[in-house]
Amino acid sequence: MRIDIITVLPELLKSPFEASILKRAIEKNLVEVHFHNLREYTTGKYRQVDDYQFGGGAGMVLMVEPIDKCISKLKSERDYDEIIYMTPDGNTLNQGMANEISLKKNLIILCGHYKGVDQRVRDMFVTREISVGDYVLSGGELAAAIVCDAVIRLLPGVLNDETSALTDTFQDNLLAPPVYTRPAEYKGQKVPEILLSGDFPKIEKWREEQALERTNQRRPDLLK
Amino acid sequence: MRIDIITVLPELLKSPFEASILKRAIEKNLVEVHFHNLREYTTGKYRQVDDYQFGGGAGMVLMVEPIDKCISKLKSERDYDEIIYMTPDGNTLNQGMANEISLKKNLIILCGHYKGVDQRVRDMFVTREISVGDYVLSGGELAAAIVCDAVIRLLPGVLNDETSALTDTFQDNLLAPPVYTRPAEYKGQKVPEILLSGDFPKIEKWREEQALERTNQRRPDLLK
Repeated sequence: MRIDIITVLPELLKSPFEASILKRAIEKNLVEVHFHNLREYTTGKYRQVDDYQFGGGAGMVLMVEPIDKCISKLKSERDYDEIIYMTPDGNTLNQGMANEISLKKNLIILCGHYKGVDQRVRDMFVTREISVGDYVLSGGELAAAIVCDAVIRLLPGVLNDETSALTDTFQDNLLAPPVYTRPAEYKGQKVPEILLSGDFPKIEKWREEQALERTNQRRPDLLK
Repeated sequence: MRIDIITVLPELLKSPFEASILKRAIEKNLVEVHFHNLREYTTGKYRQVDDYQFGGGAGMVLMVEPIDKCISKLKSERDYDEIIYMTPDGNTLNQGMANEISLKKNLIILCGHYKGVDQRVRDMFVTREISVGDYVLSGGELAAAIVCDAVIRLLPGVLNDETSALTDTFQDNLLAPPVYTRPAEYKGQKVPEILLSGDFPKIEKWREEQALERTNQRRPDLLK
């Protein structure tokens, strides 16, 4: 998989891709991630990427031309499965969408900033709009990092133990059951005895019950 | 506002707080953000923070003791309004929650990693569990950065133009209307004429209609 991220703030995105799972996936050549600084696709001497809104109002808007130039250059180099725009009014990311995206080959992710991008960018170039949740961020960069993390960890070979992703919350529309590790007792708080029993079929049953109960309590909407 | 983030990967969180809005908010002393490396609260020579699950199964679990030590130290220094644990089975972050959290003074945010934290951490210390969406990430770090971004940009004085946050998507349960900037025509694609009219009451009305229409099309659930 190859991901090209277009942003006015490549420096913001640096550290999440240089640590932990994302770093390991890149080092293992399981994914390539490239950052493209929108300012490098401007023409004027001020390297202007944004301007005031037509019609007035607070907040700057990213201009169509630098984005067109950057996307066109990338598209001239290879085919892309999707040109994704991160925006709070896009389709809300969920685990199913992450699973689906993890099967793609080449992706462009465009990060909005300030008030977002000129609507014509969305009309002319974007194939998919994704939101990471019902809240507003100062830019699409962290949202892009979220999509990358959710997707890249699903690529074969990225997680050390591949069965781990399959037992995650949401993969079966259930929240995960509670987990415990050593010590068996801490300040009077004990691990449920069943987990120390060594009776794995019983443990499995307990975990299923706990997952169902937790989902019922916290997220009954997932069970519908 | 002061935010203390407890993590096994402080290096992952570095760049988002050193760029753009978060950097500016920190420099203006509108918020203090401190990272606490969980490994510094371990005792053994291997600085072990995690261990296998009781009952078997893939994925490591963060142990209770280092987290207890770190939280106890912080609580001995000041009072905290909330001890937040980032977890996909928590309450889903939305704009209303971000608004509410932006009024708090001192927050601890605990990032899970691998399979999450020992359930006893949640039972004994955590006052609030937050999810950023229905997907699984490799750790709570990016989720914590999302919460910080969503909340910090709402603090008075952080955004240059304070009216900007009020016209964001979700603040009135409507998606934002389309925005446009120069040039008025790009490769045959024109900005809607109304926005160039200078008739501000009409523009305002058009924007309201567009916001409502977009919300109806994309997110009718927000209108209920």
